[in-house]
Order: sequence, then structure tokens, then C-alpha cells
Amino acid sequence: MLGYGTVGSNVYNLIQDQAVEIAQATGASIAVKKILVRDISVPREDAPPGIFTDNFEDILGDPEITIVIELIGGIEPAFDYITSALEKGKAVVTANKQLLSQQGFYLFRLAREKNTQIRFEASVAGAIPVIKVLRESMVAADLTSVYGIVNGTTNYILTEMSRTGAKYEDALANAQEWGYAEADPTEDISGKDAAAKMAILASIAFHTAVGLDDVACVGIDHISSLDISYAGNLDLTVKLLGVAKLYDDRINVRVYPALLKKDHPLATVSGAYNAVFLKGNSIDEIMLSGPGAGGMETASAVVSDIVSIIARESPGVLENIAAWRQLEFYPDDDVISKFYLRLEVEDEPGVLATIAQVFGDHEVSVESVIQQGRGAHAELVMVFHPVREASFREALAKLGELAIVKSQPRPIRVEGNDNEQ
Amino acid sequence: MLGYGTVGSNVYNLIQDQAVEIAQATGASIAVKKILVRDISVPREDAPPGIFTDNFEDILGDPEITIVIELIGGIEPAFDYITSALEKGKAVVTANKQLLSQQGFYLFRLAREKNTQIRFEASVAGAIPVIKVLRESMVAADLTSVYGIVNGTTNYILTEMSRTGAKYEDALANAQEWGYAEADPTEDISGKDAAAKMAILASIAFHTAVGLDDVACVGIDHISSLDISYAGNLDLTVKLLGVAKLYDDRINVRVYPALLKKDHPLATVSGAYNAVFLKGNSIDEIMLSGPGAGGMETASAVVSDIVSIIARESPGVLENIAAWRQLEFYPDDDVISKFYLRLEVEDEPGVLATIAQVFGDHEVSVESVIQQGRGAHAELVMVFHPVREASFREALAKLGELAIVKSQPRPIRVEGNDNEQ
Repeated sequence: MLGYGTVGSNVYNLIQDQAVEIAQATGASIAVKKILVRDISVPREDAPPGIFTDNFEDILGDPEITIVIELIGGIEPAFDYITSALEKGKAVVTANKQLLSQQGFYLFRLAREKNTQIRFEASVAGAIPVIKVLRESMVAADLTSVYGIVNGTTNYILTEMSRTGAKYEDALANAQEWGYAEADPTEDISGKDAAAKMAILASIAFHTAVGLDDVACVGIDHISSLDISYAGNLDLTVKLLGVAKLYDDRINVRVYPALLKKDHPLATVSGAYNAVFLKGNSIDEIMLSGPGAGGMETASAVVSDIVSIIARESPGVLENIAAWRQLEFYPDDDVISKFYLRLEVEDEPGVLATIAQVFGDHEVSVESVIQQGRGAHAELVMVFHPVREASFREALAKLGELAIVKSQPRPIRVEGNDNEQ
Repeated sequence: MLGYGTVGSNVYNLIQDQAVEIAQATGASIAVKKILVRDISVPREDAPPGIFTDNFEDILGDPEITIVIELIGGIEPAFDYITSALEKGKAVVTANKQLLSQQGFYLFRLAREKNTQIRFEASVAGAIPVIKVLRESMVAADLTSVYGIVNGTTNYILTEMSRTGAKYEDALANAQEWGYAEADPTEDISGKDAAAKMAILASIAFHTAVGLDDVACVGIDHISSLDISYAGNLDLTVKLLGVAKLYDDRINVRVYPALLKKDHPLATVSGAYNAVFLKGNSIDEIMLSGPGAGGMETASAVVSDIVSIIARESPGVLENIAAWRQLEFYPDDDVISKFYLRLEVEDEPGVLATIAQVFGDHEVSVESVIQQGRGAHAELVMVFHPVREASFREALAKLGELAIVKSQPRPIRVEGNDNEQ
């Protein structure tokens, strides 16, 4: 491993924590053997001191090391390290979007020539497996466009501006305070970071060399809170989009702020989340979305690349879908759920009190009630606080015995609330 | 290939149409050699007559045939065919969710013992690569829940009920008329189809045997238009959810209708679309969404499985991300875009006419205008019909020369409309 920052230490820990999973899935045990850092005398958490080195040759020259994980970023010395590793036939995992958007095709060709692999899931959209899906699942999809939100910082800022009416400068300061934007946010707000990612996505989607310089970009620093407010009146919302499209046999790749209808699926992608749409002649429209680059998500993407590398070098291993875990089932009765219930009842005094009593006896707590007359009957619509399902079912059974209840009680679960278990 | 219905003929055509892509990605040329049908005397489109056989032994005994694509569905004879193929060491691709949810683990183990592969992307959620992502990208994600909308028919019906206020019976009849529901829709509306898919997803996500019988399911036939209307008043919408959750070391897998807040990402998945959420200890929440099982989407998923099989048998081949296409760039000037523009202008008579004239001269057509006074200046907010970008830019340059225009014109593109190119 080259570098040991937030992502590096997360990768290290994830490999320890998920050792059983990785071994079961791939049939191979893996371990981090060496970690390259600038200064080995600095004490570091988690990893044992002996694992650190300040000499890349210790890694390059070690035949036991078959995978090099580059997490130092930037062009040099990352480019030199990766090139040397591939030359030696070692597989490479990297999260380095700058390097890939400038030297990607050189590195891809080198990996192929040396019959090894370079994987870079973490370079675009964190833990969202868009690179793997593009490389391996979309071969026959005949893609015509790839577009989406690929920069979490700008999406966080634009979401804050929309949500609170804040000015651009204030939303940026807020993003910096919460760690969603760097002290120097130029790469993100200028659209350059998104442009590097779009160059990578377009290259893989359309099998053609697209470099950072081929992607024109407009950032978000000129978006005013007035624009956001006018857009809101027009039922539109502002997002920084990366767009790569095929026009017959030519491509166009750009990054720019765009207004989207509020019911567009990308309009609901908020905060630091990312989302990528894939469209093709044999697929209508697939969307992948999730958290952008967080330390843990990026680490998860790096480890998934390691797993893919091992799996590809020993065909058949991912077939181990077998039930090596043999988990027991958790009984439905014990699940805590929130319920909605509509009941037809006699429209007479005391009905609500009687029904409320039944629920109270079973410790089922009512959150809201609507009662509405409908001819001879009344309709009760109740929403309950989260409750153990067995208790709720017992209350319903009791309710079914009451003469005042005229319909079979058929509850519907309410999901996605904060109390959800 | 076993079976030649809609999906089968789409797979056949896709393999022809995408031959170059497949060969470039995998380094291998593939061809469909034999297609098993019940009656070879029936004339069929696209594929040459000589390719059809009514004898499975023709396929099983042919050593040139290394991949068997099972598209006949149901338990028998599909189970027998797949077992025989795996026994012979042939790889298998199948879209058969019934079979997998009942005999999946037997088949997975058999494939592993015979050092071959069984792939089944098309069995769940059409072209959305959820199986591949679960098997290969989530190994280190430490998944805790997998849930979503995995049945397009019921989602279409519930969407129609919400959209039009239709009764269940009418929405079902409508779905049948448009081909979104079968003549006998029992499998779908009872939740059984979703249960089979959830059994498959839960098995792979949690590495434990989950069969169809382990998944309790409630269908949608008791959802009344009254429930939908009351739910709407509570800002909730009804969806048929499949839910697989880990409770410490026990799992619970179920299918039931659920109410979701209207701003929940699953609430916006409408019509015959599917969506799956993945949550884990090292990933926050990833969503994959797209069209459910259409003939073309299912075929695309089948072909992606074929590509994965070839790729896994010759490590290194998917490295061919190289620029074998070398596409030219499509100039930004020629892109047709829709624009939004906010301008500060002098608040005096004739200003709007002057500005409208400039746009008219460049054949830029105005869709809507808001004019609002702000002290000495007025603010104009204009949205334009789709226009060639060069024309729009020329109009803006002209505008910048006018004394009445007080701010630098900075347009924002409007995306996601029907006129989008």
C-alpha cells in the first residue's frame, strides 16, 4: 500500500475486519505486507510499526507482493510507482482520478501488455460500483450516454443553497466547516474534479481516449441564490452535471450546472451523494447512486477491486455463493414496525375509545388518527408508533372480535422513518 | 441456447449486433451454435433454420458448446438441463428465478465442484446489474440490508392507482392491456415473484441459504384506492417492497406493501421500474435502479453474463479498455440545448423588446419570461426553446454589447426535458 491517510487506514482495517468474507469469497487469504510512508518515525494507529517503509524498492522488489494499492494521489511520484509496479507484472488498485484522466490509457495499455490488471473503482463515485458495471456489465448495452452528479462537494453546496436560500459564499463556508469542502475548494467548485471523473467514465463507456483536457467545464461559483430561487418558482433545481453523450460516432463530454425538473431522479440526489445514469440502445436507463467519496466508502471500493483482482486470477472462485454462513431466521413477530391501518367501524359514540383501549391493552401506541363518516359507517385511519409485530397482530385479532368493527383489519407497514429497525 | 421466445430472440440478435464490442472486450468471438425448441418445423425470424434442434443431447454432447443459456423457465426440464450442463463442465446463464429460489444452492455448489460458473443476472431486476454488484463489489461492504422494488407489474399497478385514483381491478386490467401484467397475474400480485427474487438477493448478500419458502409474502390485491388516497393525505405512497435484513446474526426476508414518504428515493421509482437499495457497515446506502424485465433489458443482462464468463476464463481480457474506437469529438457549438438566463437590465420602456429582438435575430426562441423590478434595475428571467449552442452564444455576445444590459449574461442549461438531444 502506498500512502496511509484516512482511506489507507480504512483499507487496512477493512482487510483485517473482513478477512473471513474475503477468504470465503475468493478462496485466498490476503494481508497488507508493506505500507509506504514518507516518514516511518511518526507513530501511527492500527498498523504495526514494522509494516511501514519509506523505500518503494522494498515493495517493488518483494515477489510476495502481487497487488500495489496507490493512495498517495497526484501525478508524481504516483505515476512512476504505478508504472514500475505494472512493469513488474504486479496488479494495481488506485483511487487517483487526476492521474487516470491524464495517463489512463497509457496505464491501461501497459497493464494489458504485462498481462496484469489496473483497477480504479474508488476514483469515481466512491463505493458506487460504476466502473465495474461499465467495464463488465455494459459491454452489450450499446451505451449512448453517461451522465450524473459526480462531485459531492458541489452537490452539498447546491443542496444547501436550495434548502436554506443561503448565498453561494455562505454555503461554501458551511461545507468547509462540515468537512464537505477542502480549505482550497478550487478543484471541486471549478468543475475540474468532475471533469476528471467524466473523462474516466466516458473513456470506459465509449472505448475511446478522453483526457481531462477534452472535457470543457463550467463550475458553480457564478450560481446566485437568485437563480436558485427563480428556478424553484419554475419547479426546477440546480445540479452540477457531468454529461458524456454519443452523437452518432462522435462524443461530447462536458461538466456544467444544469436545471432539472424537481421530479427528475437526479433532482432528489442531495447532499454529498453521487448518482450516475447509463443509457443505451439495449437498456433504457439505469441509475446508480450512493454516497460519494467518504473514507469508508472509498476504502470499500478499494477492497472490492482487490477482491476482483484475486477472483480474476483464479477463475471459479466467486462461485462460492454457498451457504457458508448458515444464518438462522429472525422471527417476523419480533420485528419492530410502524403500521398504518384503515378500519370501517360503526358510527356511534364511544367507538374510538373502545378501539383505542384495545391497542392500549397491547401496548400499541397511536401516532395519529383520522375519523371520517361514510353513511352508516365511519372510517378510521390510524398510524401507530413503531411496535413489536406480535403485539400489533394480537391487538388486531382482538379488534376482529368486536362487533363495532365492520371490515377485516388489513394493516400496511410504514417504512423509511427514523424509528425503523 | 434453450428456448427462443422474446428474450431468446433478443439475445440472439444482440450477440450478432454487438459482436465487435464483445470481441474487443473479451478477446473472444462468440456465436450461438444451437437453439433448443420444442418444434423445429415452426418458421422463426432472425435465426437460420439449421440452428434449431429439438434434442438437448445435440447441445450437451457438443464439445464446442461451452456456455448453455437457459431461457425456458419453470422447474422441469430446466433443472435437468442445467444440472446436466454443469455436470459436463459447461458454464450456465439463466434467467430462471423460480428454479434459483428453490434449487439455487444445489446448483451453485455443483458449479463450484465442476469448476465452472452459473450466472443469473437476468433473474432479478432485468438489466440492473444487482447480482454482479452483490457478488463481486460488496464482498467487503458487510451488508446489513437489501431492500427495494423488484416486481415491475405491481409497481406499475400501484403507480397507476396513485396517479389516476383508479381502483385496483381497473389498474390491473390496464396493466394487462398494456402488457405489464400477465393474463394470470397471480405470481406477481401475490408477491410470490418478488419473494423468489428476494430469496436470491438475500442468499447472495448474506451467504446463507434462503429459499422461496423462507420468504413470507403479502401481495397488493387488498390495497384499496381509499388506502392510496388516505396515504396521499399523509404524504405517503404505497410500494410493494422486498426487504432482507440482518438482525445481529439472524436474517428476516419478507415481501409486503409498504407506505413510504413521498420524498423517499424509492417513492419516485414509478411504472414498471425496479430499484434495489444496499446498506452495510462500510457503505452508507447504494441504490441501483432501472427498467425491470423487458425483453431487451433481460437480453442485455444475459449477454453481460456471457461476457463475464468469458472474461473470467481468460484473466486479463477485460483490461482492453484501450481506445479501440478512437471517436472524434462532437463540437459544443452544435449541441442543441435548452437555456435559462437571468439578466439585470435598465428598468425603462422598450427594454424587453430590444432584448427579444436580439434573440429573434439569432433564431433563438423564447419559451417564458419573468420580468421583475429591483430598484433602478429590472430583472429578466428567460427560458428558451432548445437551440443550437453557437446561435445562443452569438446572441449572448450581442446582448453584452447593449448598454441596457447591466450584468454579464451567464446562462444555465435546462436538462431532462423531452426536447433534449
